[in-house]
Amino acid sequence: METRVSSATREVIIGGDRPTVLIGERINPTGKKRLAEALRAGDLSVAREEAVNQVAAGADILDVNVGATGVDEVAMLPLVVQAVAEVVDVPLCIDSRKVGALRAALAVCPGRPIVNSVTGEESSLQEVLPLVKEHGVPVIGLTLDEKGIPAEAQARVEIAYKIVERAQALGIPREDVIIDCLTLSLGANVRAGLATLEATRRVRDELGVNQTQGASNISHGLPNRPALTGAYLAMGIQAGLTCPTVDVAQVRLAVLASDLVLGRDNYAMRFIAAFREAQKAAAAQ
Amino acid sequence: METRVSSATREVIIGGDRPTVLIGERINPTGKKRLAEALRAGDLSVAREEAVNQVAAGADILDVNVGATGVDEVAMLPLVVQAVAEVVDVPLCIDSRKVGALRAALAVCPGRPIVNSVTGEESSLQEVLPLVKEHGVPVIGLTLDEKGIPAEAQARVEIAYKIVERAQALGIPREDVIIDCLTLSLGANVRAGLATLEATRRVRDELGVNQTQGASNISHGLPNRPALTGAYLAMGIQAGLTCPTVDVAQVRLAVLASDLVLGRDNYAMRFIAAFREAQKAAAAQ
Repeated sequence: METRVSSATREVIIGGDRPTVLIGERINPTGKKRLAEALRAGDLSVAREEAVNQVAAGADILDVNVGATGVDEVAMLPLVVQAVAEVVDVPLCIDSRKVGALRAALAVCPGRPIVNSVTGEESSLQEVLPLVKEHGVPVIGLTLDEKGIPAEAQARVEIAYKIVERAQALGIPREDVIIDCLTLSLGANVRAGLATLEATRRVRDELGVNQTQGASNISHGLPNRPALTGAYLAMGIQAGLTCPTVDVAQVRLAVLASDLVLGRDNYAMRFIAAFREAQKAAAAQ
Repeated sequence: METRVSSATREVIIGGDRPTVLIGERINPTGKKRLAEALRAGDLSVAREEAVNQVAAGADILDVNVGATGVDEVAMLPLVVQAVAEVVDVPLCIDSRKVGALRAALAVCPGRPIVNSVTGEESSLQEVLPLVKEHGVPVIGLTLDEKGIPAEAQARVEIAYKIVERAQALGIPREDVIIDCLTLSLGANVRAGLATLEATRRVRDELGVNQTQGASNISHGLPNRPALTGAYLAMGIQAGLTCPTVDVAQVRLAVLASDLVLGRDNYAMRFIAAFREAQKAAAAQ
C-alpha cells in the first residue's frame, strides 16, 4: 500500500517495496531545552536549524511539534511550519495533540503533509478525522485509547482496526492511514519490544497499511542507545515499519543496512553512497 | 528445542528463549594468512591466541577449522582441538569437510562438541551421520546438496527436512541437528538476505530446530560490514537463528541488543554489563 505525501514541489511515496522513509523527529521541544526556550521567545531560528540539519542527514519528511509549557501551539505551530517550509523542501508531519493547532497549521502548510495524530479515543476520532478528511491528507493513528496504551499486541491491533474503519467510514482511504503501534522503553519492561513487534507484524499482515513508530523510545533510559535502537529498527522494518520517526543522523546507517538486507537497495547503491559520504565527511574534519 | 554442548567442565544450552549463543568463527585459515602459515608450520600458537581472544570477547563456543592448502587436516585438526581445549574451557565445534579429520578430532575432543558439518549430499549423509551417531554429539546440517546451494528458500527448507529425517532415522535426536540455511553475500545478489531469512523462519516454524549461520558472509565485499552484519543478525535472530557463527568482537553488541529487544535479557543486565566492560576497556587504553 502506498501513502503519498508532498512538500511544495517534492513527492515522497511511503510503502510497497520501497526503501524505508525516515521522518525526522528533532523539531520537538520535549527534552530539548534550547528549542523550547526559542519557541517560548517566538524565535524560529532553532527550528530552522534542526530542519536543515535533519534533511542534510537524510530525513525524507520532518515532524513538526511545538508542544511545550508556555508555547501557544495554535499560534506557533503554523509559524514554525512556514519557517521550516522556507528552508527545506521535504514534506512535513504536523504534530500536535490540539486540533486547533493542527487546523491552523494545515491552513498554511504547502503540499500534502501528514497529520500527527489521531488516537483510538472517541473524542480524538470525532475531532481529528473530519479535519483530515476536509484537507484530504494522510493521518497517523496511535494505538491507544481512553484506557491508555494496551500492554498486549492484540488490543493495539484492535485499536488499529478501529481507526482504519472509522477513517474509511468518513471517506478517508485506507492508504492514508499510517498506524503507530507505539514503541515503549525496554528499560521499564523487557517485553515491551516483543509486544510492539507482534502488533506491527499483525497490522502489516492484516491491515496492510503503512506504519511509523518513535523507534528510539525503545532505548530510553538505557546506555548505548544507537545500538539498541538500530537492532530494534532492523526487526521493526522486517515486521512492517515503513516510515519510522527517528533521530535520522543516529540511525540512518542501521536503516540503510536493513533496507539492503531486505532487498530494497539495488546493487547496494544507497548503502555504498552513504558510506562514501561518511568517509568524505570524516576526511573533511 | 534445546541443544546441549559441553567442554570438559562447562555446558552451554542453545535454544528455547535463552540468549543467543555465539560461535566464534576465527579459528579458520580461510582469508587469514598468519593462521594458515602457522598451521602449515605445525605452530599452534596463533590458534591458541585466537581462542583466548574470542572467549575474552564473549564467544560461547569456538569453531575449529584447519582447512588450508598444505595442511594435513587429519593430523592437524585433533592437535588444534587439543591445543584450544588447553587454553579455553568452552565447547568446540569441529569443522572439516573431511570425515577422517572429524573422526580424528572427535577422538580427542573433551566434552560434547558439535560436528560441523553434514550436507544434503548423499555421500555426506552416509559418511557423517553414522560418525555423529557413534559419538552421540550434535551436528550442523548445511542446506546444500549435489546441485549446490539453492537460490530459493523452498529448496533449502526441503534439504533441512531431509537432513533432520535422515538423522532421526539413524537415531540422532532432532534437537541434536542444528540447521545452517547459509548466508550469502548481498554484494553478489541483493535478494540473498531475503531467501535466507525466509528459509530461517520456515525451519524454525516447521522443524523447530536450532540454527546457525556464518552471518558475516552477508556483508562480504561491501563496505561498513559491522553495520550490515548487525542488521542482518537482528533480523536473523528474530527469524530463528539461535547460534550464529561470527566474529564475536565485531557483532556481540548487535546480538546483545537483539536479545534485549526480544525480551531475552532480564533487566537488560547483559546489555548493560557489556556496555560497562566496553567503558572500562576504553578507559584503560
